[in-house]
Amino acid sequence: MTHVFDEAIAVQQTAPGRALARTHSAFGNMVGPFGGVTAATVLNALTEQPELQGTPAALTINFTGVIDDGPWEIESTLIRTNRTNQHWAVTATQADQVAVTGTALFTTDRPTWSDTELSPPAAPAPDGIPVLRIPPMVRWIGNYEMRFVSGAIPFAPPEPGGSSESIYWISHAQPRAWDIYALAAIADSYFPRVFLRTGPMTPAGTVTLTSYFHADATELAAQGEHLLLASRAGRYVRGHYDQLGEVWGTDGTLLATTHQLVYFKDIT
Amino acid sequence: MTHVFDEAIAVQQTAPGRALARTHSAFGNMVGPFGGVTAATVLNALTEQPELQGTPAALTINFTGVIDDGPWEIESTLIRTNRTNQHWAVTATQADQVAVTGTALFTTDRPTWSDTELSPPAAPAPDGIPVLRIPPMVRWIGNYEMRFVSGAIPFAPPEPGGSSESIYWISHAQPRAWDIYALAAIADSYFPRVFLRTGPMTPAGTVTLTSYFHADATELAAQGEHLLLASRAGRYVRGHYDQLGEVWGTDGTLLATTHQLVYFKDIT
Repeated sequence: MTHVFDEAIAVQQTAPGRALARTHSAFGNMVGPFGGVTAATVLNALTEQPELQGTPAALTINFTGVIDDGPWEIESTLIRTNRTNQHWAVTATQADQVAVTGTALFTTDRPTWSDTELSPPAAPAPDGIPVLRIPPMVRWIGNYEMRFVSGAIPFAPPEPGGSSESIYWISHAQPRAWDIYALAAIADSYFPRVFLRTGPMTPAGTVTLTSYFHADATELAAQGEHLLLASRAGRYVRGHYDQLGEVWGTDGTLLATTHQLVYFKDIT
Repeated sequence: MTHVFDEAIAVQQTAPGRALARTHSAFGNMVGPFGGVTAATVLNALTEQPELQGTPAALTINFTGVIDDGPWEIESTLIRTNRTNQHWAVTATQADQVAVTGTALFTTDRPTWSDTELSPPAAPAPDGIPVLRIPPMVRWIGNYEMRFVSGAIPFAPPEPGGSSESIYWISHAQPRAWDIYALAAIADSYFPRVFLRTGPMTPAGTVTLTSYFHADATELAAQGEHLLLASRAGRYVRGHYDQLGEVWGTDGTLLATTHQLVYFKDIT
């Protein structure tokens, strides 16, 4: 049986460089699909290209317009292949409107000196933490279990001041091994930081998302069910803010770092 | 008299969406031009487009190949204009080879609730800090004065372990007011973090760079000569690492946050 996530990111090659994707009802967001599944679908279309060289290292996705329920098309263009990296550009359309643009970097692994400078956030084991109750209007969250160590979605306007930092364990509701597609998706699983500052009814959405993937397939496959995520905002101003995220493995490996610029509106 | 930086980022429109740029001898790097001036030149080409709406909010630049001394061409494509944002894609070529790809987001300012969650790094005033002595093989640095609070370029292999964090004041060697182009350039002024870990002779170069611009023109113009920069790495593995940066104003305003993935080689 195909996992619901793999159903959602499936693409069908229709011509060289062109693939058809389809929104999945299980991954709906407030408006359009969950951005993480859109990013993973684009990555899936890219990795099916016969010219592909290397493994995913960086992915930038711009959400230029809402994707409505139904099919959408992804066009992948190979830009340049160098000795140890390869660059791609992506344009996705629906009904002749561009819904997504992006660029992707694939690199050929080279053994080098290695070190991790960031430290994983302090967190108790996931088993003792209750699973977040899910607002029914955001269907995609039902595919995950989120156990918040701190900074859970507030269900009422928060006190003024404070921080937008969240730390949480995430796992698939229907068990599935971690791979680069699942990683690309959860790199966008952080709810909008502005909810923690001005309340959960603030309209907000990702405009541009960049993820750097530090894990290889072996490291990803070695992870347990739960990954540890941390996120915080930088500056909120004039209707946008930046959001930083880290994705840590069960074993303390830094799997990905991710950054996005988010649109928000005041509640008036 | 035109400032040397404005000479370096100058573009000449040759057709709708097409502009000619030229490398500037004052901004040479170890190989090719300083990536920050390449990013600023692309931004300059974009902001000269007649269809432009809004101000720069996000810029992703992929360095797909080396730009040799001489002219290079920038093609700017308007992707989509929404009510409060506009998306562009960029491809730059030299001798029929793609040297740069990128995407840019321009947003229309909306007054909203605002706050800065990050804190500026602790730093003494720049006047008491000596200016970094500049290695002559990296010409672009001569256009700036850098005063390191911590994490200066090591001139010998560093001790094992430790951190790659740098905090420094930067100013133009030939005085110039701060604007979005100068900001885009210095968002790539952090020398490679790996130098602080494995030594200054480690070959390293930016592959992809994403900057989020939080300051508007008024905030930028209000800054004094010196801006305060902070940077650190996340994880070094299999020949790449991610590098985070913050650009703070003289007055403590968070002007930009920036992220890049850097290629590096072991010294063998």
